[in-house]
Amino acid sequence: MTNTHINATTSHLISGKDDVKGTKVYNPAGEDLGHIDDILIDPASGKIVYGLLQFGGFLGIGSDYHPVPFAKLRYDSTLGGYVTDLTKEQLEGAPAYEDNWRSDRDWQQRSYDHYGVRPYWF
Amino acid sequence: MTNTHINATTSHLISGKDDVKGTKVYNPAGEDLGHIDDILIDPASGKIVYGLLQFGGFLGIGSDYHPVPFAKLRYDSTLGGYVTDLTKEQLEGAPAYEDNWRSDRDWQQRSYDHYGVRPYWF
Repeated sequence: MTNTHINATTSHLISGKDDVKGTKVYNPAGEDLGHIDDILIDPASGKIVYGLLQFGGFLGIGSDYHPVPFAKLRYDSTLGGYVTDLTKEQLEGAPAYEDNWRSDRDWQQRSYDHYGVRPYWF
Repeated sequence: MTNTHINATTSHLISGKDDVKGTKVYNPAGEDLGHIDDILIDPASGKIVYGLLQFGGFLGIGSDYHPVPFAKLRYDSTLGGYVTDLTKEQLEGAPAYEDNWRSDRDWQQRSYDHYGVRPYWF
């Protein structure tokens, strides 16, 4: 995980209840890609392990929900949102959405492998 | 942080949108103390760093909101809620609630020190 750029002087905690759903997601050029619909939490570790992203026609992909390892999102306090370098190919090649993905460690393994992120459960 | 008891076979991710607010909090004897009203997230690390607990008359303390380091909560999948060993003395002796605590690193430092939890920003 390289998703750490903590600034000791400008820390501001965000509310899971009020501030997460709807937070914008940008590409590295600062263009608005969509927003976060939900976050998925590993209750044992207290770690947010997936962002459920909703993209509206991003890069030619129709509006849809994409569970993406949270480490692929970097918070930018200037933009007030998350920046991601996800590509169309990465999203299209990801494991297909399954109803039980939240409980399916095999699915999660394939997803994390796909995005090249170290599994959160190690 | 000792808040890790991950069971590789029973992982189930919880939804920040639907599953967090209202999750019950129990004492080690399994008695219902109250519930979680919100979680506070460090956006840089994706870590839940506080649970905002609401206790209704817990141990003689009136119903109130208590920001508690998330590491003081241990998820129990059997109970479907969090277990904490917080005492009345710990809650009463904690730094007084301040409006800007979410942005105040000094307040957070005193809070984490009070509960004997290693600060999340290190």
